[in-house]
Amino acid sequence: MKNLRLWAAVAIAVLRMPPARAQQTPALRSPEVAPDRRVTFRLLAPKAGEVSVSGEFQQGARSLQKDERGVWTVTIGPLDPEIYNYNFTIDGVRTIDPGNPNVKTGSTPSTIASILEVPGDAPAFYDGQPVPHGEIRSHWYASKSLGTLRRLTVYTPPGYGGAIRRRLPVLYLFHGANADETAWTRLGHVNWILDNLLAAGKSKPFLVVMPFGYGVPPGAPAPAGTDNTALFGRDLVEDVIPFIESRYRVETGRDGRAIAGLSMGGGESLGIGLNRLDLFSYVAGFSAALRPADFSKTFAKLAANPQDANRQLHLLWFGCGAQDSLFPAARSFHEFLDAHQIRHVFHESQGAHTWMVWRHYLNELAPLLFR
Amino acid sequence: MKNLRLWAAVAIAVLRMPPARAQQTPALRSPEVAPDRRVTFRLLAPKAGEVSVSGEFQQGARSLQKDERGVWTVTIGPLDPEIYNYNFTIDGVRTIDPGNPNVKTGSTPSTIASILEVPGDAPAFYDGQPVPHGEIRSHWYASKSLGTLRRLTVYTPPGYGGAIRRRLPVLYLFHGANADETAWTRLGHVNWILDNLLAAGKSKPFLVVMPFGYGVPPGAPAPAGTDNTALFGRDLVEDVIPFIESRYRVETGRDGRAIAGLSMGGGESLGIGLNRLDLFSYVAGFSAALRPADFSKTFAKLAANPQDANRQLHLLWFGCGAQDSLFPAARSFHEFLDAHQIRHVFHESQGAHTWMVWRHYLNELAPLLFR
Repeated sequence: MKNLRLWAAVAIAVLRMPPARAQQTPALRSPEVAPDRRVTFRLLAPKAGEVSVSGEFQQGARSLQKDERGVWTVTIGPLDPEIYNYNFTIDGVRTIDPGNPNVKTGSTPSTIASILEVPGDAPAFYDGQPVPHGEIRSHWYASKSLGTLRRLTVYTPPGYGGAIRRRLPVLYLFHGANADETAWTRLGHVNWILDNLLAAGKSKPFLVVMPFGYGVPPGAPAPAGTDNTALFGRDLVEDVIPFIESRYRVETGRDGRAIAGLSMGGGESLGIGLNRLDLFSYVAGFSAALRPADFSKTFAKLAANPQDANRQLHLLWFGCGAQDSLFPAARSFHEFLDAHQIRHVFHESQGAHTWMVWRHYLNELAPLLFR
Repeated sequence: MKNLRLWAAVAIAVLRMPPARAQQTPALRSPEVAPDRRVTFRLLAPKAGEVSVSGEFQQGARSLQKDERGVWTVTIGPLDPEIYNYNFTIDGVRTIDPGNPNVKTGSTPSTIASILEVPGDAPAFYDGQPVPHGEIRSHWYASKSLGTLRRLTVYTPPGYGGAIRRRLPVLYLFHGANADETAWTRLGHVNWILDNLLAAGKSKPFLVVMPFGYGVPPGAPAPAGTDNTALFGRDLVEDVIPFIESRYRVETGRDGRAIAGLSMGGGESLGIGLNRLDLFSYVAGFSAALRPADFSKTFAKLAANPQDANRQLHLLWFGCGAQDSLFPAARSFHEFLDAHQIRHVFHESQGAHTWMVWRHYLNELAPLLFR
């Protein structure tokens, strides 16, 4: 149960508990978000010589100070209402905040972090709210193209399988490097973002399919003669799409398919989508991992037939934050498309390479799909 | 992608990579499982003064030894093929193994651990195998009885919604303290255990519904005049069961409902189930949190009408491991039931208070349900 706000009333009751009843609660609260949105981090580590916290809420690391009991503490902020990742570094070892059960996991160690939710005065667009809720399903499927058992996640909108009898379109949505097929639901809150947009009448109902985004295991080299995106693309086209279209009541033509992804997954969504306009008509990339040196090769087909592309593409959308190291590549892609007169939306935003940015992008993209 | 075996062929390729191509792989592998099932843990921590590993594979903690580069190492085993939890303690701070992306999370900090999978020569009963796979669904629902937004997880067997058109029975299955509604799928492998039993013809198909097991937030006291089990039971009966029966093609009578849980959830499944034989006909507890001093009160209804109970109960099953601190309570419950001539199965096994035991119990219980 991750949503802090929902427990707020009870949490206040806990804080007010007399000491005798509170004896089973952990002695240290970390992180603690005060009503003014200042955040205090704490760690009991009498033997440690140095403890710091780094996270998406600040540049660099902040040192914690040790008291006579060996409790390290620092208070930061006030912070904007958001969901932030952070890590403790204890005597040079980067790890999680051991006092916080809300842990970000993924497919490689570098992704492990603690999660801090700073609530605002009202629920955010990515929060669970009292509206109809869709479902999240996870499937294991045997990938014939990759020869492994893989998992994918599916979001179905409220009413799917019930009041909604017609076939619905599908957004294929990819995570970034070091993450996995649960990232868009657990960190991206895709279900709540879409539940909220649907309740507000701002989006059409569609399914979201979130496969595991690696064609080869994280950190492994691709077999000679191919690459991660090519292998992932084979699994997508030959295994994932047929699996979904045989199991779900979905549209099966290009008008009913969108493809998007973030970072590594943005490189995949643009690289695969723009080469398979026979399959996809909405293509998007969020802070996409793009190599300008490869544009003329990766997007040769697109550049060769801009009129065809403009006729087939209902939308080509990509965004990147100005503080993201991938921003120059996004700008280059924008210029490449302009040079070839290919219609697109380049969304320049503030922000770095974080889920804070990608939740916003999904919220902006979803209303544009399947209109 | 958690299943190590599936990546074995590629992992070997990675190990054989020439150093030039391996530069992006993390320098340290931890844990590393050798072919003889010895396991090596590693940590880069030049500034640390003491590092140890504790886990379900051993009693107590084992110290790691530091080399001149500041790399701490220990090799243990060989271990039996199993899935084990473990923690590192770095200068007195209990945390995860920062080199292992496979992290056990839950609803309180005390549950956070790293996960070690030691594969055997053949897939285990809890491993993903090339058989038809069911689905895992997660739903958010507004609990009217508790006034909060809560999540539950549902396993549907292969064929549900497809080849299987009839209504299926349901097992309501509860996690333990400090865990959450994802524990039985992520740590218990409920889906793979049932997929494998079904493929072997050893179990009837049924759905498994896994709600969030707290009536009050973890660590919080219950409001005066009630308790956690009573509040959880209200949510179960008034919200969860109606939600499931309105959304899924399931049986709606007592013959088609089973209730089980582990530890705190076992206290819940026995406490609720045995008092609501109008709703449940199969009742089970795994290493259940039971208080012998309360038996005559908690199970007063059962003790007062043993003939009714024996007629209504298709199965009362509970198991506990001999090395579990809750074993004496389980034995007392066995004696209490014997004294009241209530038919039951008391499964005394080896093992402590661990998921290793509970995966086995589910594998033993499932074939007995809905026969």
